[in-house]
Amino acid sequence: MQNKKNMPLTSQRGDAMPLSPIRKLVPLADKAKARGIKVYHLNIGQPDLKTPQVALDAIRNIDRKILEYSPSDGIKSLRTKLAGYYHRFNIDVTEEDIIITTGGSEAVNFAFMSCLDPGDEIIVPEPAYANYTAFAIAAGAVIKPVFSSIEEGFALPPIQKFEEMITPRTKGILICNPNNPTGYLYTRSEMNQIRDLVRKYDLYLFSDEVYREFCYTGAPYISAFHLDGIEENVVLFDSVSKRYSECGIRIGALVTKNKQVRQNVMKFCQARLSPPLLGQIAAEASIDTPQEYMLEMYNEYVERRKYLIDGLNRIPGVYSPIPMGAFYTVARLPVDDSDRFCAWLLTDFEYNGETIMMAPASGFYTTPDIGRDEVRIAYVLDKEDLKKAIVILQKALEVYPGRK
Amino acid sequence: MQNKKNMPLTSQRGDAMPLSPIRKLVPLADKAKARGIKVYHLNIGQPDLKTPQVALDAIRNIDRKILEYSPSDGIKSLRTKLAGYYHRFNIDVTEEDIIITTGGSEAVNFAFMSCLDPGDEIIVPEPAYANYTAFAIAAGAVIKPVFSSIEEGFALPPIQKFEEMITPRTKGILICNPNNPTGYLYTRSEMNQIRDLVRKYDLYLFSDEVYREFCYTGAPYISAFHLDGIEENVVLFDSVSKRYSECGIRIGALVTKNKQVRQNVMKFCQARLSPPLLGQIAAEASIDTPQEYMLEMYNEYVERRKYLIDGLNRIPGVYSPIPMGAFYTVARLPVDDSDRFCAWLLTDFEYNGETIMMAPASGFYTTPDIGRDEVRIAYVLDKEDLKKAIVILQKALEVYPGRK
Repeated sequence: MQNKKNMPLTSQRGDAMPLSPIRKLVPLADKAKARGIKVYHLNIGQPDLKTPQVALDAIRNIDRKILEYSPSDGIKSLRTKLAGYYHRFNIDVTEEDIIITTGGSEAVNFAFMSCLDPGDEIIVPEPAYANYTAFAIAAGAVIKPVFSSIEEGFALPPIQKFEEMITPRTKGILICNPNNPTGYLYTRSEMNQIRDLVRKYDLYLFSDEVYREFCYTGAPYISAFHLDGIEENVVLFDSVSKRYSECGIRIGALVTKNKQVRQNVMKFCQARLSPPLLGQIAAEASIDTPQEYMLEMYNEYVERRKYLIDGLNRIPGVYSPIPMGAFYTVARLPVDDSDRFCAWLLTDFEYNGETIMMAPASGFYTTPDIGRDEVRIAYVLDKEDLKKAIVILQKALEVYPGRK
Repeated sequence: MQNKKNMPLTSQRGDAMPLSPIRKLVPLADKAKARGIKVYHLNIGQPDLKTPQVALDAIRNIDRKILEYSPSDGIKSLRTKLAGYYHRFNIDVTEEDIIITTGGSEAVNFAFMSCLDPGDEIIVPEPAYANYTAFAIAAGAVIKPVFSSIEEGFALPPIQKFEEMITPRTKGILICNPNNPTGYLYTRSEMNQIRDLVRKYDLYLFSDEVYREFCYTGAPYISAFHLDGIEENVVLFDSVSKRYSECGIRIGALVTKNKQVRQNVMKFCQARLSPPLLGQIAAEASIDTPQEYMLEMYNEYVERRKYLIDGLNRIPGVYSPIPMGAFYTVARLPVDDSDRFCAWLLTDFEYNGETIMMAPASGFYTTPDIGRDEVRIAYVLDKEDLKKAIVILQKALEVYPGRK
């Protein structure tokens, strides 16, 4: 029997969870706003584009009398429609292969919970989306990073680097393509190398492809489902958040042809009963978004990307590779520590009553003490705001005490 | 380096997850429906009552142009309004103490993840809501059950039974009040005993109080927050699902005055970015549901409860205690195995082209092989349907081959 211990302790797991690099500075931003300062949000992938009218109309015209539970794997008509959407990208899946999740986040969470045991390892090129780490910690799994460098535009590291990291505990490889945070788009050759390794060691290939609509260079988008011979190994993460500018509805999907994985994932789905009903209604309608909307959005991001990258690379000491997809870039800044710089921008700097919020890149690396002079910038603001943000960054770097 | 292993293996954790007793028979029910049989759903706490008009109107009148992320802890105006709602029940919390979650389910999940490490134990009176087990497995925690008996109407077992189970790994006690699945409402005296034990060993008191609006006997609802001296130990789970018949919107809350717990929970909140926006809009409006709606709903459940319990106890061999709250009862049936009986009802029985679906109680017990002759029945159907369901149960028991 234990003694009285004065206060319940929180979990070591919880204590070990990192603060989100995307959101940890929010309290500082709130304080800046309270001081009357306008903050341009380059920290989070929250597009400023309007949600498609068809989605808003579906919500406004809802004729249900009871907002009841939906099936644990999602409304069937949504799954069927999503399968049709994937067919447009030559992803050959049926509604049976699709499980609707509460955002792409839950797809990651349930995949890790269903496929990985405590101590199991997954190999991930870094920098990587920070919340993979959070969900790995929740599952007790270990992320083994393979370093990709800004000098090489964050291309896939040599596949030998991945192979060297394989141990008896390795259960999978995780990629994000097009990549968040780097904007890199994996080539056919790189994807084939991953495929061969996955096949050789019979690993899971967790593939986060939520940015597939955002590919800017004419290079093809290669889905993990386009790779022959590893159909049962692929677990795809998807989300409607980014492509229809509806991050708040929390609708994503886990797609896999591996029945055993689906059966395990479904247990977690049943435990949380069902994904959000209203979001599913909006998501289903969104799949009918007119092509003009998608094209307009695409053109807008093409321009923003050019505008941002040109602007960044014109600031003395700043370097950004040219991202090929998604709507982020990881840029190198002439600063001592981007965590400190990003906080300083919110606590000690303003230019004409305005400042910017960026995500320090340290949170996207698993290896300690790298990326300390890098930031992730989301180009989710219109060109006028991006222009102001670039000026603010330039002015800030001129006076930042930790300038290198 | 590992050898090729033919197929990736799912996780032992996932394999260990139980199928939900509430949903595991759904495939059989679907097949029965496909054969043209009408199935009355007594298995799931999905009320048939209309969602309040104010909630539906809030959704229909939504005037947002972008369905964007909300704050990770939920929209502030919702949290403020919820604090006001709790004040009506003499629960003295502020919006700072409230974190909005994706259903009550996520509140349970994040509490376990934030407070419990693998191997940590929580003591739970059984039978208990089955998904606690699922979330405990996800967190690697261990549920230590204390048996409560149908003969005593599922009252709190003697507090000594709890104290005997305390080990150095015990981190908390979990109660559900009013109780799902039993309908039991803990008395002031029982709650004080729990309080004393929680204080003596400085444990967490996880308190699921989503059914507080459903108390039928005039006995008071005692919240964990009504107990003096353990304010920092209480982690309350709440949900708008049941009281406003809007289970599908997936909005719940985790409420605690323990700042350290909130800080840890917020890391999990940030990892999943935000709770559902549309659901939050509906939930906020729901708090203004007119008193007439609440009263009408209450009276409806009072009648259904009387109707169901009277009906059950009139069937030869069937026994149900009188539930004091929530909208469930655990009844004893004269059958060999309620899992087999509930499946048989869907696969081999019909009465005038109709049958019923119930949740076998085995899934609500952690101890193996108890409750095998019990079922959980949710009285979420109108009296006409309940009447038919009771007749079907009676007719089925007359011919069930495993009748005892």
